[in-house]
Formats: sequence, C-alpha cells, structure tokens
Amino acid sequence: MLFAEYRRLILLTEGALGVFSSKTATSVIRYRRDDVVAVVDSQAAGQSLEQILGIGQGIPIVADVAEAMRFKPDALMIGVAPVGGGLPAAMRIPVVDALREGLSIISGLHLRLRDDPELAALAEAHGAALCDVRDPGPVRRVAFGLARSLPVKRVLTVGTDCSSGKMVTSLELRAAAIRAGLDAAFVATGQTGAMIEGWGTAIDAVVSDFAAGSAEMLIERVHDRQICFVEGQGSIEHPGYSGVTLSLLHGVCPDAMIMCTCPTRQYHDKRDDCPIAPIEQQIQLYESLTAPLHPACVVGVAANTAGLDDAEANRRIAALAERTNLPACDPIRNGVAPLLAAVRAELHI
Amino acid sequence: MLFAEYRRLILLTEGALGVFSSKTATSVIRYRRDDVVAVVDSQAAGQSLEQILGIGQGIPIVADVAEAMRFKPDALMIGVAPVGGGLPAAMRIPVVDALREGLSIISGLHLRLRDDPELAALAEAHGAALCDVRDPGPVRRVAFGLARSLPVKRVLTVGTDCSSGKMVTSLELRAAAIRAGLDAAFVATGQTGAMIEGWGTAIDAVVSDFAAGSAEMLIERVHDRQICFVEGQGSIEHPGYSGVTLSLLHGVCPDAMIMCTCPTRQYHDKRDDCPIAPIEQQIQLYESLTAPLHPACVVGVAANTAGLDDAEANRRIAALAERTNLPACDPIRNGVAPLLAAVRAELHI
Repeated sequence: MLFAEYRRLILLTEGALGVFSSKTATSVIRYRRDDVVAVVDSQAAGQSLEQILGIGQGIPIVADVAEAMRFKPDALMIGVAPVGGGLPAAMRIPVVDALREGLSIISGLHLRLRDDPELAALAEAHGAALCDVRDPGPVRRVAFGLARSLPVKRVLTVGTDCSSGKMVTSLELRAAAIRAGLDAAFVATGQTGAMIEGWGTAIDAVVSDFAAGSAEMLIERVHDRQICFVEGQGSIEHPGYSGVTLSLLHGVCPDAMIMCTCPTRQYHDKRDDCPIAPIEQQIQLYESLTAPLHPACVVGVAANTAGLDDAEANRRIAALAERTNLPACDPIRNGVAPLLAAVRAELHI
Repeated sequence: MLFAEYRRLILLTEGALGVFSSKTATSVIRYRRDDVVAVVDSQAAGQSLEQILGIGQGIPIVADVAEAMRFKPDALMIGVAPVGGGLPAAMRIPVVDALREGLSIISGLHLRLRDDPELAALAEAHGAALCDVRDPGPVRRVAFGLARSLPVKRVLTVGTDCSSGKMVTSLELRAAAIRAGLDAAFVATGQTGAMIEGWGTAIDAVVSDFAAGSAEMLIERVHDRQICFVEGQGSIEHPGYSGVTLSLLHGVCPDAMIMCTCPTRQYHDKRDDCPIAPIEQQIQLYESLTAPLHPACVVGVAANTAGLDDAEANRRIAALAERTNLPACDPIRNGVAPLLAAVRAELHI
C-alpha cells in the first residue's frame, strides 16, 4: 500500500499544533481534509481545530492514540517538520502506541523510521508499515539544464524565507489553472507536498550533488503537460537551506517565478542575527541566478498574511506591490487570480 | 587504519590519465608524491607520467595490478571523480585484482564500495579494507551562520566552473601562509582534499539540507587557528553543482574569497548549451550572496592556465587582472604571493 492510499489519517502534532509550528498537519488538513479523522495533541486536546488553524472544522483534537482509535484510523501521520528532521521526543510514545494498534506510520522526517530498531521491530510484529516519505531512494543524477528543452512550461515558487507559503501558492495556482481550462500539474519537491499529491521527491533529502538532478527528473515526469507549478524550497539567503533552493532553481529551469513572502517577518528562523534581505534585492538575486542557464523573471508576489486583520493585510500587500512593481496578493485570503494572470501573460498561454 | 595512513599507494586511472580527466590522481601526486609507488593505466603504460601531467617524475605507469605488486603497495586509490560518482566499468577488474592481493581500496566515489556485495565479500576474504572517503556519515546539522562568530579568519576559494583549481589554490595559499609565519589551516571539503589532508568532509555527498551545516562543522574544527583556507566546490552557475557551492558559501561565512577560473574555458562540462557567465558578473553574484549573512569580497583571481605557453598564459592573466581590477596569477605557474598579500591586506593580518 502506497502512503498516498491511506484514507483515515490521525495527524500527530503533540505539543506543536499551530499554523507554522505544525505546517505539515496544517497543509494536509487544508488539501486532504476528507482523509483526516483526528489530530492527536495532548496540549490542545478538546480545543477547536478551526480556532487554532482557521481550517479543519469538525476534526476532533484528542489527547492520545487510544482515544483516536474510535475514529477507525488506518495510519498515523507525523504532522511536523522540525529543524534537523529528528523524531521529537514527545512524539515517540504516540508513535509506539500507534504501531501497537497496527497503524502504519507516515513520516516526512529526515530520520528514517525504519532505521530505528525499536520502531522497525514493532512494525513487523504488528503488521504495520513505516512509510518514510522523505527518503529519495538511491538517485545519482547530475543536472545539466535538460528541463529547458521539455515542452512543459515551468513556474517555480521562490521565497524570501522558508515557511512562507511556496507549496500552498503552487497548489492554489494549479487549482486555478485547471479551473481556467489549462492542463496543469503540481510538482511536489518536499515531503508535505508529496503526502498531499501522492508523488514527488523531498529535494532537501537528496545528496547535494544530485539535488538539482532530482528536480530535473521530477520535471521529466510532467514533460507532456501544458504547465506545471513547482513547489519551491527554502530561500536563496537562508543560512542553512540556500543550497537546496539553488539546486531547485537550476534543476527546474523555470520559465517564470512567483515570489512568496511573509511581510511581517524580519529574520530567518527567528534568529535576530540572520536578517531577511529586502524582497526587491532577493528578486534580483533569483533572476541573476537564472540568467546564464535559462533567464526567468519573478512575475508576481504571494504574501502570507496569516494572523493579520484584513485592513493590515491589505496595507502590507499594497506596499509589496508598490515596492516590487508586481501584482501581489495573499493566495489564501484573496485567491491567486492576479498571479495566474501574470503567469499566463508572461508565458503567452 | 585510517585511509590517510597508507603510504604506498597505487593510483588507478585506467583509461583516464590526464591533468583534468584524472584530477584526483593529479592532485595526490602533486601533494603526496612520496606516498605514490605506481600508476595503473593500461592505456598509458610505459609512458612518462611527467610528460602527461607535468609532475610525478619517476613514478612508473604500469598496465595492471599484477605488475604494480612489485612496488609493494599497501593500497589502491581510485584516481578519478567521474560525473555521477559510480565506479567506471574499466576500473572494476583492477579493483577486484587489488582486493585479491589483499590491498585496501581508497575511493572517493559517491558509490560506496562497501555497499557492493562482490567487493565487500572479497575485502573480507582477503583482509582488506574498503575506505569510502566520500561517505560523510550521519550528519544532521542545519547551519545558522555560526562560523561568523568563530575567531579563525576564513578564506574560501570560489570558481567560475568546477575543476578550475580551487583545491590547489587553497593548498598553495596555506603553504605560503605558513612560510610567512601565519598559523594557517587547510579545510578539505571534497574527497581529494580529504585524501591529501587526512580529514575533511565531501560536502557534495551530504544530504542537501545539511550541506551548509557540515561546512559549519568543519570550520569549528579549526576555530582556534589564525586563518584557514577552505577548498571551494563547484560553481554558483553550474547547472548541477551550484547548490553545493552556495551551501559552502553560507556554511563557511568567508571573510574573503579568491576567484578561481580557467580562462580558456567557455562552457560548463564541455556542454555548449551551458555557457560560463563572465567572471565579473560571477564575482558580483558571490558577493551579493554573502552580503546579508556576512559580507565578503573577492580579493584576487587564481587562473588555471594549464596547457598554455608562458606568453599566452601571461596575456590571459593580465587580461583577467584588468577585467576584474584585482591581483591575478596562476598558483602553479607563478606562486600565490599576490593572492596572499591581497588576503592579508583585506583581513589585516
């Protein structure tokens, strides 16, 4: 059974439930609402998921796996993506409990659950599967700009920081493009995107020499589609993840880019010694880095204004549009119509 | 026995002997001349190594491992670093022969020899070791610019392309700095550098999320030295390797950079659809990418003029100096005095 085939999921967020702190869970609830039967989080048990995340109305938050079993789940999905990618200590007990109940575990952690002897033994004893979605397998492909020669048009989301809405923007653009009659694909480049879409590669888990090559291979899978919206990763100035970002940029060879940003954020990962460079400077960097291989422009700005009231959000979005001289909107708050229009104008489709 | 402790090496270059085509062998001969007892290459057997590489006078080139055994080797080192990192087909027989003779194998390939069942069984049967130098081990560190706060001054070589002389330039600068009385270290970030120096991490073999973090960890190992010369990797516009390059840039947080270039080269990896961007444009890119985290300048140009006569080399070097307005020289042909002077002036040491 492939990980995408489980249809009665428990999402485990133990102690981390929140729009950003459990972004995997947030996105799975947003895009696979009907496949989620419960959230397990002892710190938030009994509260309203909709009040915490703004989505997920009617999905119960329970304290532990035992309580979640009455919703007849078929798998437990780990709903966080912590820095470093290890299994958070607080999540070990619920994972063990789930395995003892025979539930399969779907994980996007860097740590491979099947390399954990205790978990592997429990899974075998109880007939459960350990699905390590982030494991890219033994890929060994070096990129040489081959994506440029494929007929599919490629739109990459890039960002001023990680967790700025790149996956959501790509998914919303794909949906809007299909509604507009285009033959549009979504290309997942991270574990959450793959959990939602059922296929993809977590580029950040690929050996760095082959990260761009893996991206190139993903584009080959959609080569005969009209347009694809590729989920970006990290940020070109992020001290830890910039290499992943650039591998993706050169592996995908986008025809157009959408810049995603959280306008209230000033620092990478809340570290006040890692300032986020001004958005117009970053747009110039992304464009400079595409120029020799396959020139592409940033054609719109997607603002993640979660947590702001409408007036403040609109003020921030207007300021971004003025600074960048590009169409700007919040894909969740406003939809993506201005961004799709900018993409279509740029690509003549 | 650590891989650096073998002192009677056979270098295997089977069919690929040349300054660039067997760059691992070339560099090991240059920097560990006394540890090399023979080169195995049936295509070049009996020829003069010095005529082919310009170095290695007196080291015999023999046709096979059987013939090399009379030089009493203790290990066979694979002398190439092919794109993709697999074991070239022509090298399998000599590797098997060496294992049957009880010789250990030192490999910098991405492919781990110990994961090859036939080679692993032969090694065990004959008491030989399989040293996979490129295996970075289970590192899982995300970088956050911590190298900035370490007292050691950091000089990174960057390049307009891969195989442009970054390792050699860093090694020559380290040697010149020591001669000038500085407490200088060399930081190996690739398999050949590690084979020469005895420690280091092949950053391109690290999972991409942790590539910058691995670089940060290498700097921590030399934190109490006065200055370190860090071997760069790849190139910021290389379609396949740019992510490795940027991870290194943000993991190391250099205080100064030296730009390495092959002035005769126009395309990445001989692909005429992957042009190398002009050097002044690349210098600006490297500097822009360091700016938000830890601003650094390119302070000199190292030109790899292998294969040119002196007059043409000097003409090319003068042209580079004029284009970039920086001191320029060929570290092998001219030494690195102008580059070290530029570094010392920039860092006030």
